[in-house]
Amino acid sequence: MKKVNIAILGIGRIGKIHLKNMLRHFSGVNVVAVADVNFPADEFKKEFRDIFFSSQPADVVSIPEVEAIVICTPTSSHAAMIEMAVKAGKHIFCEKPVDLSLERTRALVEMAKAAGVKLMLGFNRRFDPDFMEARKNIQAGRIGDIQVVKITSRDPGLPPLDYIKNSGGLFMDMAIHDFDMARYMMGKEVKEVYSKGLVLVDKQVADAGDIDTALTTLVFEDGTYAVIDNSRKAIYGYDQRIEIFGNKGMIQVDNNLHNRNIISDANGIHHALPLDFFMDRYAASYLGEMQHFIDALSNNAPLPVTGEDGLKATVIAVAAKKSVAEGRPVLISEIK
Amino acid sequence: MKKVNIAILGIGRIGKIHLKNMLRHFSGVNVVAVADVNFPADEFKKEFRDIFFSSQPADVVSIPEVEAIVICTPTSSHAAMIEMAVKAGKHIFCEKPVDLSLERTRALVEMAKAAGVKLMLGFNRRFDPDFMEARKNIQAGRIGDIQVVKITSRDPGLPPLDYIKNSGGLFMDMAIHDFDMARYMMGKEVKEVYSKGLVLVDKQVADAGDIDTALTTLVFEDGTYAVIDNSRKAIYGYDQRIEIFGNKGMIQVDNNLHNRNIISDANGIHHALPLDFFMDRYAASYLGEMQHFIDALSNNAPLPVTGEDGLKATVIAVAAKKSVAEGRPVLISEIK
Amino acid sequence: MKKVNIAILGIGRIGKIHLKNMLRHFSGVNVVAVADVNFPADEFKKEFRDIFFSSQPADVVSIPEVEAIVICTPTSSHAAMIEMAVKAGKHIFCEKPVDLSLERTRALVEMAKAAGVKLMLGFNRRFDPDFMEARKNIQAGRIGDIQVVKITSRDPGLPPLDYIKNSGGLFMDMAIHDFDMARYMMGKEVKEVYSKGLVLVDKQVADAGDIDTALTTLVFEDGTYAVIDNSRKAIYGYDQRIEIFGNKGMIQVDNNLHNRNIISDANGIHHALPLDFFMDRYAASYLGEMQHFIDALSNNAPLPVTGEDGLKATVIAVAAKKSVAEGRPVLISEIK
Amino acid sequence: MKKVNIAILGIGRIGKIHLKNMLRHFSGVNVVAVADVNFPADEFKKEFRDIFFSSQPADVVSIPEVEAIVICTPTSSHAAMIEMAVKAGKHIFCEKPVDLSLERTRALVEMAKAAGVKLMLGFNRRFDPDFMEARKNIQAGRIGDIQVVKITSRDPGLPPLDYIKNSGGLFMDMAIHDFDMARYMMGKEVKEVYSKGLVLVDKQVADAGDIDTALTTLVFEDGTYAVIDNSRKAIYGYDQRIEIFGNKGMIQVDNNLHNRNIISDANGIHHALPLDFFMDRYAASYLGEMQHFIDALSNNAPLPVTGEDGLKATVIAVAAKKSVAEGRPVLISEIK
Repeated sequence: MKKVNIAILGIGRIGKIHLKNMLRHFSGVNVVAVADVNFPADEFKKEFRDIFFSSQPADVVSIPEVEAIVICTPTSSHAAMIEMAVKAGKHIFCEKPVDLSLERTRALVEMAKAAGVKLMLGFNRRFDPDFMEARKNIQAGRIGDIQVVKITSRDPGLPPLDYIKNSGGLFMDMAIHDFDMARYMMGKEVKEVYSKGLVLVDKQVADAGDIDTALTTLVFEDGTYAVIDNSRKAIYGYDQRIEIFGNKGMIQVDNNLHNRNIISDANGIHHALPLDFFMDRYAASYLGEMQHFIDALSNNAPLPVTGEDGLKATVIAVAAKKSVAEGRPVLISEIK
Repeated sequence: MKKVNIAILGIGRIGKIHLKNMLRHFSGVNVVAVADVNFPADEFKKEFRDIFFSSQPADVVSIPEVEAIVICTPTSSHAAMIEMAVKAGKHIFCEKPVDLSLERTRALVEMAKAAGVKLMLGFNRRFDPDFMEARKNIQAGRIGDIQVVKITSRDPGLPPLDYIKNSGGLFMDMAIHDFDMARYMMGKEVKEVYSKGLVLVDKQVADAGDIDTALTTLVFEDGTYAVIDNSRKAIYGYDQRIEIFGNKGMIQVDNNLHNRNIISDANGIHHALPLDFFMDRYAASYLGEMQHFIDALSNNAPLPVTGEDGLKATVIAVAAKKSVAEGRPVLISEIK
Repeated sequence: MKKVNIAILGIGRIGKIHLKNMLRHFSGVNVVAVADVNFPADEFKKEFRDIFFSSQPADVVSIPEVEAIVICTPTSSHAAMIEMAVKAGKHIFCEKPVDLSLERTRALVEMAKAAGVKLMLGFNRRFDPDFMEARKNIQAGRIGDIQVVKITSRDPGLPPLDYIKNSGGLFMDMAIHDFDMARYMMGKEVKEVYSKGLVLVDKQVADAGDIDTALTTLVFEDGTYAVIDNSRKAIYGYDQRIEIFGNKGMIQVDNNLHNRNIISDANGIHHALPLDFFMDRYAASYLGEMQHFIDALSNNAPLPVTGEDGLKATVIAVAAKKSVAEGRPVLISEIK
Repeated sequence: MKKVNIAILGIGRIGKIHLKNMLRHFSGVNVVAVADVNFPADEFKKEFRDIFFSSQPADVVSIPEVEAIVICTPTSSHAAMIEMAVKAGKHIFCEKPVDLSLERTRALVEMAKAAGVKLMLGFNRRFDPDFMEARKNIQAGRIGDIQVVKITSRDPGLPPLDYIKNSGGLFMDMAIHDFDMARYMMGKEVKEVYSKGLVLVDKQVADAGDIDTALTTLVFEDGTYAVIDNSRKAIYGYDQRIEIFGNKGMIQVDNNLHNRNIISDANGIHHALPLDFFMDRYAASYLGEMQHFIDALSNNAPLPVTGEDGLKATVIAVAAKKSVAEGRPVLISEIK
């Protein structure tokens, strides 16, 4: 099988994960080039000597044999990178979100479509083995028709305030994963959003114009619903659970603990805390999403998560924000 | 300690439980008399020979030494029974709800108050040992300030349609327990209610003018919230779980299974289903609520659940129904 | 159905439980009389006014209409009580053990048999709902042929040294329940016993001539085996677990916790400790064993636990003690 | 930090794992050469082009810059490979066991010692993150003084009969891991072994001169003990659990399930089965053991598992076999 030639833009935390995963685990891929404005070229060369490195994305996107671009730069540059890649006719894997602006997101998704360029969004959680197993069970009819999806999605702590200020807010930055997950599990589209938002973790979050605690009800086309419970800070760690209730049964996906030791002492029976760093918790899903991207390119198969999916989650996030602001359920049809 | 003289009105399913609990487990109570329109006097005499029995509630309420009346008649007669008891100056334990009509409920609660008669509502779940333990932990500060309460409350199957028709609907009949539980765990008052209602279990429920599936968001005075997820039919049994999330931790109260056998075979690791009959699941809480009622009378202490609590839960139920009908969040202040 | 007329000898801790259970929960029994040397007659009369009470067992055993005697006196008097009851032609329920002496145990079991008197031993754990469920699953073939039984049986703390001195030792007093349980689950007879015994909890136990920690391997007729792990002190409470491994699956019976609250905080995920008082842990089995005794008498059916069962467990206990003393596996056929 | 130059002998299933782990995850190692009699050189070259490959171990062991040899050849050749490596002055990592013969094992361990060559045995389970966590907790005093270790170690199915015939038998091939684990957790030496052995899975195992089911009691120097329960076939998968009971608490290490989905349906609450392939179950420990080997070489630090450890586990295996044959506890001091 022919190998896919890839270039990566941005090798911060996430870019490095993708790069290492490709080098270590994928036989179907050639990492041809990497670009990063900030990363020292020397250091890169020392560790990844054979790979072409540049501080300029354009140097890398323009390489003829590169077939696909993996965009891991900061959110604010996603739009420009996508545009550059589309114009060069390269397929794209982009970390979520496409852009904080709904208009621009829509325009980019359409541009990619028009150009026949594949655009996959990095909703990595869809590739978590446990969530995939849940989906597989749903599709196999194991729990019948889904009636309710309940997502608990709590971070282990506040990100830096500077990050929050540029994040697009809790719904666009954090809950967007859960909005996508609800659609993924339900297999239907959202028609109404009702969100409550609070600042309970840190008052500075309010000063930054954001919330740190939220509850969102998503109503789907047929009236069934999902509830998403977000907090920026669960003192016991990264809480990522899903419960799906159907007329033939229920699936619960529990947290992934640090270890399987159970200690009984005079005070109780104690289990370890959930993995608290998202890169540990979702290590397998970062690997999985990239594998799926590469496979889709190799087989010219449909992508498992598309720009459209990114757009839909963004619309929900915009509706959620509006719902909090106006204190009422917002119809998806109201957004644009 | 002086024993409390009690009379019971109605010895159907619930009345019998209270009667037997008093006879078996309580040293501080004398069951003086029982009235029931339908129960055969012969059969009663055979089983409970010493207790005065009548088919007429009035015969029993009028007995001078009776200090308190336990009302276990059908909901439609609660109002009349409460009125009779209040007029006779007897303290009252009444199964929920006081009445399907909010006006009448309010009037009865006030009437009891004015007469100096104690009126306790049978929100038995408050006395479930696991929920009491959760409450105790909350009050001890174990999880800090509560931010979210999540209640999963699913019945194991539809009640008969005739029952549904006279029940006051899912919110008044079933979710009312959860509304009370949310207030009990939060220790605060509700200011806004948003409910979605669906008919997913059986279309005949719609014909009966009711819903069988619902999701309710209760917003409390300070903006924190509770989510209640109701279904009339969980195929795996009676699902009664609570999760309380605070800034110092989380408490989860899990279901009570039929047994503690774990069977591993070629297909998986299997645990027993939850207890699926409410009288089994809440056996300890029926005992506990009556014990608390008797104790409160003996000590002339405040009741653990009052007519006011019943009224407040009823107001929430009315608001929930209105919210479904109007498709919007309803303020508690709108009700009346 | 005719009621069974019962007399109880000894109303200490256990006798009181049986008395109350009979009064509260059994419709098929009449408690005719109670005898206790130590219990104040006044106090008894105050609480149980209608029942004939005497300080002399003989007064009670000789009552003609009494059909069965429930023996709850101290172990040292069991033999005399059984003899008295057998001579009077009364059926017998006796708390374990029959006697500390194997010879006397054998003689009493034979005496009862010869007299056609039913003799049931109080191996209450057989009637624990979870263990009964396990047995039912085994008998239904759920796990195929049993290969290994593993019993963890740890007390929450040392009994008083005086008790230990008169207890017959860990094997006769404590592990005897587990020996019976292994036979019950296996449905086969033991042919060899290998035990290790240690004093790890308190050196005074050694001075009292006993051990406080033991491990016993029971080999059954067909070569399959059970392992029993005993300790007088588990700091986390009363640890009563069983694991049964068969060629088609495994059954694990887990502990019964104080409550079902799960608390997650910065240090871990915490469950409650196991019930730590044997009367709480085995409340249902005390009720169940007596129900079975009464039912067997009413139907003239075989008893679920017989004097023979008591004898066999005693033989194993004797073999276990010998095994520790001699540091080698001891054949059951060596005992007597 | 200087990189360690390694050569691997044998790249069957295990050798390939070590090779890939080194290439993917270790920055401190250079894989200089690989030898394998059976592996096609072409295929090797295609996948691992830069690495020197030979069909002759001697070609590889003799390379001057090679500092350490990783032996992954079949058990029958371990002795010859170790000898060759020792003579060449190379450090050694060898998959267990050193040899099926106790005499030869002892001789090789001494030879390595005399030559100042480091010899690490591949008791990979010591490096399982959950077992390491248990050990860490023990050493931190979390459960006080250990009184009992209970190991459940059941394979998901019989290996081929040909494998069994050359395996050295259940104790030498399979239980040897558990013998090492018991020593590792206890931190003490074994003085007595008592084993029962059965053929319950397949009669052909008896024809092959082996057993498929065993129970072993290890008594340690101070009288405390470990129990190891082995079966070649657990129908529900690979069962690898440990329970450690101390005077201040208990640690249980539970199985590692295929996924964290919990499905509730009309029949029960179902969890996934344990991982059933040892290479999946112990993936992290294969990585960990090699990391520790490399680190020890880099720092000239003591090895975490030595040839002595391999020898001690082998002695226990020999004693276990003798115990089954003679039907009695065997002292370690009896072995040689």
